[in-house]
Amino acid sequence: MDIRLFPLQKHGDDRGSLIALEEGRNVPFTVRRVYYLFETKPGVRRGFHAHRDLKQLVVAVRGSCRFLLDDGREQIELLLDNPAQGLLVESMIWREMYDFSEDCVLMVLASALYDESDYIRDKAQFMALVEQEPQA
Amino acid sequence: MDIRLFPLQKHGDDRGSLIALEEGRNVPFTVRRVYYLFETKPGVRRGFHAHRDLKQLVVAVRGSCRFLLDDGREQIELLLDNPAQGLLVESMIWREMYDFSEDCVLMVLASALYDESDYIRDKAQFMALVEQEPQA
Repeated sequence: MDIRLFPLQKHGDDRGSLIALEEGRNVPFTVRRVYYLFETKPGVRRGFHAHRDLKQLVVAVRGSCRFLLDDGREQIELLLDNPAQGLLVESMIWREMYDFSEDCVLMVLASALYDESDYIRDKAQFMALVEQEPQA
Repeated sequence: MDIRLFPLQKHGDDRGSLIALEEGRNVPFTVRRVYYLFETKPGVRRGFHAHRDLKQLVVAVRGSCRFLLDDGREQIELLLDNPAQGLLVESMIWREMYDFSEDCVLMVLASALYDESDYIRDKAQFMALVEQEPQA
């Protein structure tokens, strides 16, 4: 699956911790949009979409949540619970997020501005599109 | 002083809250670097520098901290304690941050990659440079 979970270098000293995400270094795209999810209510499951083109780098900068990722061929479930862990999600990956901790702040760096036409919000449509793609 | 504290639109619904920072909309520069400070130890005061050119947009996405900002002519102290509040800091502003809450996550969007030559780390040198500038 076209995702990558990778460690982020923590610049820690006697003051505290700092992590930097930089274009061309650990971010493989130009960042056009940064958004963050917070105050997520208990029991909420969100996401339920894929992107035609958008690439995203996701970090749980506080707290934790779980991801379900599906490229139409396999499903992966993973826990983001570490501000020093980045999750790169390429295009055409269905995602659902759940089990948000009360304090979770999920930060997302995105390669384009918001564009509703880039979203695929219907799972059956997503599966049909994936089946049309040539196999890697 | 060339700073701006401004509200960020919170997209809240029955799932939780989302805030988006977008190039050309509420971010007046291309984001080359995103960094976050966390696990800051009690009593720490950090910053103690100005930037020759770098522009930054700062958000306390969790918790709170205080800023001292100084452009060489006036000083402003302010509290960042709201994920729906953005602080834009232009170039040539001396900054110190302190009173970090235990849970504080301070997110910073920056207009350039890290470049040590852009930093002014000596307050006297900063004051001398500001005095050479033409008055607005």
